[in-house]
Amino acid sequence: MSNTKKIESASLKNVILDGGFWAARQATNRDKTIPAIYHQMELTGRIEALEIDWKPGTPKPHHFWDSDIAKWIEAVGYSLETEPNPEFERLVDHAVDLMEKAQLPDGYYNSHYLAVEPDKRWTNLRDMHELYCAGHLMEGAVSYAAATGKSKILDILSRYADHIDAMFGPDEGKKRGYPGHPEAELALIKLYRATGDERYLNLSKYFVDERGQQPNYFDEEARRRGEDPRNYWAKDYRYTQAHVPVRDQHTATGHSVRACYLYSGIADVAYETNDQSLVNISKQIWDDLTQHQMYVTGGLGPAHTNEGFTFAYDLPNENAYAETCASIALVFWAQRMFHLDQDSRYIDVMERALYNGVMSGVSFDGETFFYANPLASYPNVNPYALWSGITSDRYYRRSEWFDCACCPPNVARLVASVGAYFYSTTSDRLYVHLYGQNKATFDYHGSHLKIEQQTNYPWDGAIEISVKVDKPTTFDLALRIPGWCRHHQVMVNGEMISAKAERGYVVISREWSKNDKVSLVLAMPVERILPNPGIRQDAGCIALQCGPVVYCLEEVDNGAELANVTLPPDAPLKAEFDADLFGGVSVISGEAMRVEPENWPGGLYQPESAVRVARKEFSFKAIPYCFWANRQPGEMRVWLREG
Amino acid sequence: MSNTKKIESASLKNVILDGGFWAARQATNRDKTIPAIYHQMELTGRIEALEIDWKPGTPKPHHFWDSDIAKWIEAVGYSLETEPNPEFERLVDHAVDLMEKAQLPDGYYNSHYLAVEPDKRWTNLRDMHELYCAGHLMEGAVSYAAATGKSKILDILSRYADHIDAMFGPDEGKKRGYPGHPEAELALIKLYRATGDERYLNLSKYFVDERGQQPNYFDEEARRRGEDPRNYWAKDYRYTQAHVPVRDQHTATGHSVRACYLYSGIADVAYETNDQSLVNISKQIWDDLTQHQMYVTGGLGPAHTNEGFTFAYDLPNENAYAETCASIALVFWAQRMFHLDQDSRYIDVMERALYNGVMSGVSFDGETFFYANPLASYPNVNPYALWSGITSDRYYRRSEWFDCACCPPNVARLVASVGAYFYSTTSDRLYVHLYGQNKATFDYHGSHLKIEQQTNYPWDGAIEISVKVDKPTTFDLALRIPGWCRHHQVMVNGEMISAKAERGYVVISREWSKNDKVSLVLAMPVERILPNPGIRQDAGCIALQCGPVVYCLEEVDNGAELANVTLPPDAPLKAEFDADLFGGVSVISGEAMRVEPENWPGGLYQPESAVRVARKEFSFKAIPYCFWANRQPGEMRVWLREG
Repeated sequence: MSNTKKIESASLKNVILDGGFWAARQATNRDKTIPAIYHQMELTGRIEALEIDWKPGTPKPHHFWDSDIAKWIEAVGYSLETEPNPEFERLVDHAVDLMEKAQLPDGYYNSHYLAVEPDKRWTNLRDMHELYCAGHLMEGAVSYAAATGKSKILDILSRYADHIDAMFGPDEGKKRGYPGHPEAELALIKLYRATGDERYLNLSKYFVDERGQQPNYFDEEARRRGEDPRNYWAKDYRYTQAHVPVRDQHTATGHSVRACYLYSGIADVAYETNDQSLVNISKQIWDDLTQHQMYVTGGLGPAHTNEGFTFAYDLPNENAYAETCASIALVFWAQRMFHLDQDSRYIDVMERALYNGVMSGVSFDGETFFYANPLASYPNVNPYALWSGITSDRYYRRSEWFDCACCPPNVARLVASVGAYFYSTTSDRLYVHLYGQNKATFDYHGSHLKIEQQTNYPWDGAIEISVKVDKPTTFDLALRIPGWCRHHQVMVNGEMISAKAERGYVVISREWSKNDKVSLVLAMPVERILPNPGIRQDAGCIALQCGPVVYCLEEVDNGAELANVTLPPDAPLKAEFDADLFGGVSVISGEAMRVEPENWPGGLYQPESAVRVARKEFSFKAIPYCFWANRQPGEMRVWLREG
Repeated sequence: MSNTKKIESASLKNVILDGGFWAARQATNRDKTIPAIYHQMELTGRIEALEIDWKPGTPKPHHFWDSDIAKWIEAVGYSLETEPNPEFERLVDHAVDLMEKAQLPDGYYNSHYLAVEPDKRWTNLRDMHELYCAGHLMEGAVSYAAATGKSKILDILSRYADHIDAMFGPDEGKKRGYPGHPEAELALIKLYRATGDERYLNLSKYFVDERGQQPNYFDEEARRRGEDPRNYWAKDYRYTQAHVPVRDQHTATGHSVRACYLYSGIADVAYETNDQSLVNISKQIWDDLTQHQMYVTGGLGPAHTNEGFTFAYDLPNENAYAETCASIALVFWAQRMFHLDQDSRYIDVMERALYNGVMSGVSFDGETFFYANPLASYPNVNPYALWSGITSDRYYRRSEWFDCACCPPNVARLVASVGAYFYSTTSDRLYVHLYGQNKATFDYHGSHLKIEQQTNYPWDGAIEISVKVDKPTTFDLALRIPGWCRHHQVMVNGEMISAKAERGYVVISREWSKNDKVSLVLAMPVERILPNPGIRQDAGCIALQCGPVVYCLEEVDNGAELANVTLPPDAPLKAEFDADLFGGVSVISGEAMRVEPENWPGGLYQPESAVRVARKEFSFKAIPYCFWANRQPGEMRVWLREG
């Protein structure tokens, strides 16, 4: 067997999340989020734009609207894998019919260019998201065709991919272009896997290899448009990871969603071509990102200006951008990294992002969304003060929609497909990455294997796993011991085993009989998390984490002026399950201090000697960060002052 | 006598700063800053633009270049009041000759419009700074004519003011416009005082009264340009304080320089017209600004997006905008407020701004400038990360110049004229606002009065004041007891007097004889300053202040990672004069702690129990904030964690 080549994730349709956190989130996603997104796409003209009958003088279909529809189709496909929904299918089929009608004989398809500026296609890869939209449509096509068996959308996208393959590449007469916003790289790999057509693999590899080569294609393309490349609005090709060739990149750089889509594509190419140099580059960038540039929530990209990375340990809280899509892209990349290098550290990051920075992107009711995911929030921010950036109410209240609506359908497709992140399989090993109530099935050497997890994870560290095989079968069951867990215990059929974790997994190698029971207990105390001393924004603060879940204080539970709350180093902390809150979550409570002057004489500044500072104890309550901003608007803080 | 109407500041030419802090700053200003600004104006085409021979296809003279030259002329005029400089005069006279040549017969003058778009004048008051440039030219004209007796520039600007008066106003046939960027309001008052022509006073009053009236002039003007007013780039007329009429404004709002220029103009109109309702509005806005929206440095306007105000207690440090010009404008306004309402609280703010937020705007060598004045700085900020705003190296290193170069000549004119802020006089009282080595002369009821201050203020609180009259004269000598000072002592001719401060001034009423000596001792311990508990960005921190000077820690003295430095509540602090640093400044030192893990296991986040946090004592050194970033680039912090 090989741990490197043939490892793959579980099939989505074979993992049924039948209770607990993810089942609830998936139900909301299916019943609320997916319909709400379609409703918004209708309201905003995105569906109508598929008719390709835009008239000058009316609002133009935006050049990345296709990607919104594509991600929504992809979400529908994933949802259909485990739950039929004729209405969803009707809506997708209608869209697919319109796409088929609009697709040009040469295979080209982009609703913006077809309607608005058909003579301009492929003239601005840098800014116009044409290959990005193509990639998302490919992902949508693969998802929807796999779930329904309806191949029409896959055929449309294969024809489009053939067109793109004819247009771009190293061969004489082709353009040496590549995506301004990476996405097609990973999408072409999916299309390759769905169709078996190696041209798509080769095109993806070409995109990866060509990126950042000199002379820079984006420069040349700008000159062909009659523009001076130095006037590039984003100023620097770091923004789009095209400043140097991929193999010369060693740090996470630029726009964080572009970055992690690219890194996912690189990992896919490395996996398919067994390219060790790409594996090494991927590990270097991974280490930089996760060791220097990641929020405790798995959020990425602190800066608004480039929607992306800045420099090591620069992790502002209140002004964090930490786009929902970036954490989602990190989940994609993490799974791929694990498939290159079987180490739980990738899954630790994936789990951190999933339970925190991803799920904070959608409201508990599933109908509103955060684009940015700050780690502290002050709701009296005057919207006026921030008018040149994202409007400030998006900082404390989720929105139904955005002009640039990448995040809502991105959350929808990830939630709908989260089952596929629970397990990976090789020819002789089953990796269990994530814990949560589910039933999953696999085929092992002709044996039909059924895994059932009984657990209230992430609110409880006790997981009962039944392993059911239809005949005795030998394989490794590799149970992830999360990085946050410092004591664990494994029993098989009631007997303690003393297996040590190897690269983060306890590997149980045995011949499994019909009805084995594995009990895993992950000690899950409330942890005070210290920040790296290089993170200036968190100095003197701690975060509260319990299991994979990061907590926050909200004003609704704790009053305002949370900056004046301190947590004494010795304050006992307890986590208790509250069945009534957000469908059942653990809540952390304890005694904190409110440290404030009790005789402030007025004014902005006073000599310390004129002020008596009082320390008043109060009972605080922390809730899971991913559920913040679901009650009354108010202040929120993840990092709490210690003292 | 009247304390309200006839109070006025000392004549600049009668206050000679002959030693100490301000004499040194003025020498640098005269010898380095004023020439450096002229050099930059030549390099960037601003001087050449006065020739009004711009050719299409070449870079356009910018629509606010006139204001840069005007403020430079104003600075030269102030400098000439106390020190002749034929070269300065030659340069100004040349510019004035060009202006005279270019001025239209109807009096219009604007080097941008005359050269670039002569048919567009007065079509966009909202954005195009035409009245702003006119105002600065008036201020320059008044200053230069007063210093040299050369009236040509005053004649040019009087003709221009006559043109403006013919163009704008409430009368039939005139436009009901007013400045998009306030400035002409206060400038017209200066022109009125210099010429005695009441039309200028009335025009200023009209501008103040018309501002923000409905229908909004900027809306109507935009429609006349064929634009939809709702597409205003700044989104909201709060930006330019034109959202409601001035008399309905109660808080400091919008672009902070526009705001404080407007408030200064309002105060001038109130003073000249004895308009108590404008006085009351001014006090309300003053209270809001100084009680809710001012940095401890006297910096104003935290936000980059609007270069201005946000909301109460929102005072971010590292991202502070706190434009140099805003603190300068605050000085202007503070003096005017005192002339409306004789209370030292205005001068306390003026002094805070002068020694901190204003003087941080220029380097010790006088040749580089800060536009923004953050209260914390991290020099490894990747310039890329901030590319949509001000480039980030401006955050830790002063620049020789800016495309929008308002700040350098603004510092130059304020430093050159700082002597005028030392004293105010009424018919029977001399207010001493600021302390510092100087010799000043006044006429009191026919007596020639000479005041000499001997002091090393702001580094020492002992001030010896000799009062020399040529004949025995009765008047009040009112000595300001700064708000920061909690113990003071006054002696007259060696005898303690027990006068209490009234509205912040110890008033010594007596018949002064030929050679009286007043000794004032202001206790000047190092103070730990606590922030208002509403300022979330400063929670748990203190600032160090000694006298009016706010201090900061720099990396060059204290190492990096200043966020991990804490100051124990009981740490003794001492201020000592260091004659070798920046021409002689007091430096604060003491023992601080560096609180850092000593066994950080790597990674971004660790459970607290896995880390041993060590507290290591070290000797810290704090320097005056206004002199930061004059040595090796590095971190800087004003607010230090206490603990």
